[in-house]
Amino acid sequence: MIQKLIEKIRKTNAPIVVGLDPMLAYVPEHIQKKSFAEFGETPEGAADAIWQFNKEIIDKTYDLIPAVKPQVAMYEQFGIEGMKAFQKTVDYCHEKDLVVIGDIKRGDIGSTSAAYAVGHLGKVQIGSHSFHTFNEDFVTVNPYLGTDGVKPFADVCREEKKGLFILVKTSNPSSGEFQDRMIDGKPLYEHVAQKVAAWGEELMGEEYSYIGAVVGATYPEIGKVLRKVMPKTYILVPGYGAQGGKGKDLTHYFNKDGLGAIVNSSRGIIAAYKQEAYAKFGAENFADASRQAVLDMIEDIRSAL
Amino acid sequence: MIQKLIEKIRKTNAPIVVGLDPMLAYVPEHIQKKSFAEFGETPEGAADAIWQFNKEIIDKTYDLIPAVKPQVAMYEQFGIEGMKAFQKTVDYCHEKDLVVIGDIKRGDIGSTSAAYAVGHLGKVQIGSHSFHTFNEDFVTVNPYLGTDGVKPFADVCREEKKGLFILVKTSNPSSGEFQDRMIDGKPLYEHVAQKVAAWGEELMGEEYSYIGAVVGATYPEIGKVLRKVMPKTYILVPGYGAQGGKGKDLTHYFNKDGLGAIVNSSRGIIAAYKQEAYAKFGAENFADASRQAVLDMIEDIRSAL
Repeated sequence: MIQKLIEKIRKTNAPIVVGLDPMLAYVPEHIQKKSFAEFGETPEGAADAIWQFNKEIIDKTYDLIPAVKPQVAMYEQFGIEGMKAFQKTVDYCHEKDLVVIGDIKRGDIGSTSAAYAVGHLGKVQIGSHSFHTFNEDFVTVNPYLGTDGVKPFADVCREEKKGLFILVKTSNPSSGEFQDRMIDGKPLYEHVAQKVAAWGEELMGEEYSYIGAVVGATYPEIGKVLRKVMPKTYILVPGYGAQGGKGKDLTHYFNKDGLGAIVNSSRGIIAAYKQEAYAKFGAENFADASRQAVLDMIEDIRSAL
Repeated sequence: MIQKLIEKIRKTNAPIVVGLDPMLAYVPEHIQKKSFAEFGETPEGAADAIWQFNKEIIDKTYDLIPAVKPQVAMYEQFGIEGMKAFQKTVDYCHEKDLVVIGDIKRGDIGSTSAAYAVGHLGKVQIGSHSFHTFNEDFVTVNPYLGTDGVKPFADVCREEKKGLFILVKTSNPSSGEFQDRMIDGKPLYEHVAQKVAAWGEELMGEEYSYIGAVVGATYPEIGKVLRKVMPKTYILVPGYGAQGGKGKDLTHYFNKDGLGAIVNSSRGIIAAYKQEAYAKFGAENFADASRQAVLDMIEDIRSAL
């Protein structure tokens, strides 16, 4: 799947991913109204609203982008109905030939990590049959439990030719509380990065590994260091746009081949119509605002590289 | 909810929690057969099988124990149908007045952590209504993202009087890869423990905090240290039984008041009938084997304290 991701990045010339993190507050009134009229102000109504919202954004942006990153928490909060909307979103993105990065940040040990891995990337065995369940192409994974937590995911990736993005340095202000602590002269995130590189060596695609890393856009100096620690690791970069990262800060996340990083924007794209810069589109045309925000983001990053 | 947990531990005199982690391989043939006959070898069939399995174990053990800990991965792997079985299990445990610890190990930042928190502990707002969705009493949380990741959970806990168990030192062999690394003369897990204690001070129940910690049974010497670092923190102790921990190893996880720790066993209880010691019960009476295993575990821990 890393090959498909790279191909799509080359084809679109857009190393970006749209984060499908639909908070209900982002969904325009007219969509909420319609969904609530049909299903009530219920989890079913909310799930329908976020699904309709996603669908329009996907329809208006899929030709410009290689990948999407649905944040499962935004669906999971609505329970079963929310998870149905998550699944629908993943399936629909596949119909549109988008690479789907499930932002699930799971991480556990042994058979438990294996269960997450089959549920999100692989096939679950039931009697003599096996089934894809959520079926994303990549998922994000938390490294705190070490190799025991990552290996079951890696095993499924090998079998399914899918991939991971492992949290190394996150974009949030308090990420430094543990991730920046110095161990033998290097911050923890660098030790994690070394492990990610080592895990990735075992699972190489043609140019890059199946195992990628998450490094926040909000720490460009750290990105520069980590690019070198993990030369064959694709870096997923959250924190662009709404969280403060800009294209010119991100050049060092890329390799000289122009590859090696994919930059995520969520709110900045899906709720673009709420920003002054895109207000002229109006809430009715929110997806056109998203398309324009995607074009602007691509331009910002292309001009920086 | 920490008060209710303590009351129930006092009443049962059993500081234990049964891990409801139903791998399909644990579910006796006769249950699988029945569920598959009704729903086919499908996710629906698998979900029914693990639900029937859980229900019998709950019915045979709920009077002996204060709490259960369903591991969401084991349900999530079956997709939507699996999540329905998770929800059914949580609801049924509440009917039986058990405290439910959702072993979800989520952890993200800001609005994303908030979404997990409302989805698993709180109420999600939809229009002018609010809904409990999965509605556990406690959840496990991963600390790698720092305070930004934990605060949204803590906020919901304050409002709902619910609680957390934050991963400090996990029970798996490779937990040391990052957790044991020395920072300023102390291992990372001890720094995490200090944060857990500090977060917990802001959210105190009568004797113990709403914010607990996870410390594996497989590292008793570490348990001894962490007990002192987090005196008012309830410690959830996985790794008893199948993973190697024994009652006599666990005395130092408890405070002098006989409280402060709750020991989990999953496989050792729910798949007891597969062990030689309980084979006499036979697969048909698997839940009686689980009851006996609970009684034996309680005895092992009581005699050690």
